[in-house]
Amino acid sequence: MDMKEKIAELLEQKNYAGLKEYLSAETPQDIAQALSDLDEEQILVAYRVLPKETAAEVFVEMPPEEQEMLIKTFSDAQLKLLLDEMYMDDTVDIIEEMPANVVKRILRSSDPETRKQINELLHYPEDSAGSIMTTEYVTLRENMTVEEALLRIRRTGIDKETVYTCYVTSPARVLLGVVSVKDLLVASDDQIVGDIMDSHVIYANTNEDKEDVVKEMAKYDFLAMPVVDKEKRLVGIVTLDDAVDVLTDEATEDIEKMAAIVPSDKPYLRTGVFETWRKRIPWLLLLMVSATFTGQIITGFEAALASSVALTAFIPMLMDTGGNAGSQASVTIIRGLALGEIEMKDVFRVIWKELRVALMCGAVLSVCNFGKIMLVDNLIFGNDVPVNVALVVCLTIIVTIFFSKLVGSTLPMIAKKLGFDPAVMASPFITTIVDALSLLVYFGIATVVITNL
Amino acid sequence: MDMKEKIAELLEQKNYAGLKEYLSAETPQDIAQALSDLDEEQILVAYRVLPKETAAEVFVEMPPEEQEMLIKTFSDAQLKLLLDEMYMDDTVDIIEEMPANVVKRILRSSDPETRKQINELLHYPEDSAGSIMTTEYVTLRENMTVEEALLRIRRTGIDKETVYTCYVTSPARVLLGVVSVKDLLVASDDQIVGDIMDSHVIYANTNEDKEDVVKEMAKYDFLAMPVVDKEKRLVGIVTLDDAVDVLTDEATEDIEKMAAIVPSDKPYLRTGVFETWRKRIPWLLLLMVSATFTGQIITGFEAALASSVALTAFIPMLMDTGGNAGSQASVTIIRGLALGEIEMKDVFRVIWKELRVALMCGAVLSVCNFGKIMLVDNLIFGNDVPVNVALVVCLTIIVTIFFSKLVGSTLPMIAKKLGFDPAVMASPFITTIVDALSLLVYFGIATVVITNL
Repeated sequence: MDMKEKIAELLEQKNYAGLKEYLSAETPQDIAQALSDLDEEQILVAYRVLPKETAAEVFVEMPPEEQEMLIKTFSDAQLKLLLDEMYMDDTVDIIEEMPANVVKRILRSSDPETRKQINELLHYPEDSAGSIMTTEYVTLRENMTVEEALLRIRRTGIDKETVYTCYVTSPARVLLGVVSVKDLLVASDDQIVGDIMDSHVIYANTNEDKEDVVKEMAKYDFLAMPVVDKEKRLVGIVTLDDAVDVLTDEATEDIEKMAAIVPSDKPYLRTGVFETWRKRIPWLLLLMVSATFTGQIITGFEAALASSVALTAFIPMLMDTGGNAGSQASVTIIRGLALGEIEMKDVFRVIWKELRVALMCGAVLSVCNFGKIMLVDNLIFGNDVPVNVALVVCLTIIVTIFFSKLVGSTLPMIAKKLGFDPAVMASPFITTIVDALSLLVYFGIATVVITNL
Repeated sequence: MDMKEKIAELLEQKNYAGLKEYLSAETPQDIAQALSDLDEEQILVAYRVLPKETAAEVFVEMPPEEQEMLIKTFSDAQLKLLLDEMYMDDTVDIIEEMPANVVKRILRSSDPETRKQINELLHYPEDSAGSIMTTEYVTLRENMTVEEALLRIRRTGIDKETVYTCYVTSPARVLLGVVSVKDLLVASDDQIVGDIMDSHVIYANTNEDKEDVVKEMAKYDFLAMPVVDKEKRLVGIVTLDDAVDVLTDEATEDIEKMAAIVPSDKPYLRTGVFETWRKRIPWLLLLMVSATFTGQIITGFEAALASSVALTAFIPMLMDTGGNAGSQASVTIIRGLALGEIEMKDVFRVIWKELRVALMCGAVLSVCNFGKIMLVDNLIFGNDVPVNVALVVCLTIIVTIFFSKLVGSTLPMIAKKLGFDPAVMASPFITTIVDALSLLVYFGIATVVITNL
C-alpha cells in the first residue's frame, strides 16, 4: 500500500491519532507528494493533523494550486502562524505564484519588518541573484572570540536557513570575511574571528544573473554564496539547495530551447494545453517558413529531378544525415559553452577539431553508403541506381557533413559573441540551414558528374 | 592582466615570495585553471611555491594530464604528504584516471588503512553510490550528551569532508539516526544525542544508482546522504558538492544522447579527434541506414512525383516540420521522465494532451502554409503551385503533426517501460520515423486528392 492509500484509509477510519503518528515518520516532501493525489477535503483534514513546524515544511513543498486552496481556508491567525514558520525565500517564491488577492492577505498577515523584507526581495529582477537569495543568515563581528561567535550561533541559529557559513560584517553591514562553523569548531575558544576568517570573500551582486552565481557556487563547492549591494553591504545569501534547483531548471531550459520550444518554468503535467501550444508554435511556424528556401532550391532543379528520378529518393537521407551531423556538433558546443568548458578564445581549436571529425565521419558514411546502394538498393530492392548517381550521393555526404559540422560548431559561438543564447542554435535551426546547403551541394555535384542533366 | 600572465611574470622575475603572496589570495579552483595554461616547467615551479594544504586543493582541481605529470616529479615523501592532505573520494577519483604504474605508486605511498579504504572504494561499480561516496564523516553514539558530541566534532572534525551532518551509529556501525550540527548547536549541552537525533534516516545502498541518490538529495535538500551496506552498516556519505557534479554530468549525458551522440565523460576540448569521431559515428551510421526506408517510399511513388514535380518541392518542409513537432514532444517527455515529473501512470494524460496540442499546432501551421503558398510561392516566386497540391500539403501537415506528437510522446515512455534509456528516443530517432510516416501520409493523400496521379 503506498502512502497516499494509507493516508486515505486512516482518514476514512477517522483515525486522526493514527494518521498523526504515521505522518510523523515521513518527510515533508513525501507527505506533500502523497497529499497532492488526494481530493481537496482529504488534503484539508490531513494538513490540520500535522504539527505546526512540519505543516509549514509540507506547505512549502506543495504545488501552487493546493497552496492557494489551503490559504483560502486559513484564518488570519493560522496564516500568520504559517508565515512565521517559513523561511523568507520560500515565502517570496510562494507569493510569486499567487493571485493578487492572496498576495495582499499574505502581506497583511506578516509583521512590518518581514513585510518590508518581502517587498525588497520581490523587487529584484527575475533571474537575478537577489530573486533567489534568503535574508536569514548568521552575521558575526571581527573582534568576537570563537566562544562568543559559537554562542551567537547557538542563540540565533534556530531561525536561520543555514548556520554553516557565517559572514563577518562591519557595523555598516559591509562584508569583511567569511568563516565556516567547521573553522570555528576546530579553532580554540579564545581565538579571534577576525584572525581565522577568510577575508578573500567571493560574493555576488544582487543584480547578477542567478545562473552565473550558481555556476560559481558549483565551481567553488560553496554551501552558500553571499550577495551584496552596490556598497558591498551584505543583503542576503543563496543557499546550495536553491542553487541545485536553479541548475536543474537551467538545464531543462537549455534542453527545451534546443528542441525549438520556448522555455517554460512549470512541470509538463501542470501546464495547460493552450500554454503548451503557445510554447511550441512560434518555432514550428518560423522553421516551416524557412523551409521555403529548401523548396525553392528543389523547384530550381525540377528539370534535373524529372530526368533522373533516382536522385529524388536520396534527398531525405542526405538531409537527415547532414542535420544529424550538424546537431551533434552544435549541441556539443552549446553544452560546452554553458558549462564554461569552451570559451570564445577556443573558436579556432573547435573548428579545426570539428573539421577533422567531419572528414572522418564523412569518409566512413560515404563508403558505407556506397556499399549499401550497391548491395541493398540495387541487389535486394532492385532499384537500379546508376553508379554515377551513387557516386554523386557519396560525394555529397562528405561535403555536406563537412559544412554541417562547420555550421553546427560556429553558429553557437557566433550567437554567444553577439549576445544571443547559443542554445537556440541547436538541431532545428541547424537542420533548416543544413537542408538548404546539402541540396545545393547535391544538385551542384549532380550537374557536374551526370552529364546528361 | 589576467592571473595566468601575472603568474608567468612573477616566475620570469624569479619573485617567488611575491608569487606566494599573490597566490595566497586566490582560490584553488582559479589557481588550477591559471596553471593549466602555463607550460610544464612553470607549473612545477609555481606548484612548489604553494603551501602544503593549498597545494593539495589545487592538485585536486587540475586536469588528469597535469596531475600525472606532477606525480611523476614527486619524491615518495612528497607524494605521501599530498595523499595525507587529500580527501579519500578525491584520491579515488584521481586514481581512476591514472595509468597503472602511477596507481601502484599512489597505493604504495598510502598508509595501510588508507590503502584498504581506497581499494574498497575502487571496488564499487561505476555509477553506484559507493563509487562517489567519501569515507570521512563524523559518527556519534546515541548515549552521548550534546556537549560530548560537540567536543568530538571539534576534536575529529578537521579531517572530515563535512561535519555538518553527523551520523549516530551502534557499536557494530549500524546507522541509527542523523543529527545536524545546527541541531546540536541550538540544543542545550546536557541533552542526549539519542533524544534529538532523527531516527527516520533516509539512506542509500552502496550499489544504488548514483543518479537516483543525487535526485533524492536534491528532493530532500540534503547536505550529505549516508550510504550503508547490506547489513545497514554505515560505510560512507555522498556530499552535496559531489552530487551537484553528478547532476550536471547526467544532464550533459542526456543532452548528448538526445543529439545522437554516445555520451562521454570528458570535456570537449580534452577529448581527442578519434574519440569524438567514435562517439558520433555509430548513430550517424544507424540513422543513415534507416533512411533507406524513406528513400524506398519515394522510389515507390516515382511515377506520381514525375507527373507532378510541385509535390517534390514540399518534401523537405513536411519532413522538417514533422521532425520538429515530434522532437518537441519527445524531448519534453524525456526531460519530464528524467526529473520524475512524469511517471508511467501518466501515459494516457500525456497522450491526450499531446494530441490536443498537435491539432492546435497542425491547424495553425496548415492555415499559415496555405497562405504562404498562395502569396509567397505563387505570387512572389511565380511557382504556380496548383490549389489541389496546396491542399494536399496542408492536410498532410495536420495529419503528420498528429502522428509526430503521438510517436514523440509515446516512444520515450515505451522505452522506459522496456528498461531502455528514454533519452535515446529524441530528435534524430523520432525524425527518422516521422520522415517515413510523413511521406506515406503525403503520397497517400496526394493519390486520393489529385486524381490524375
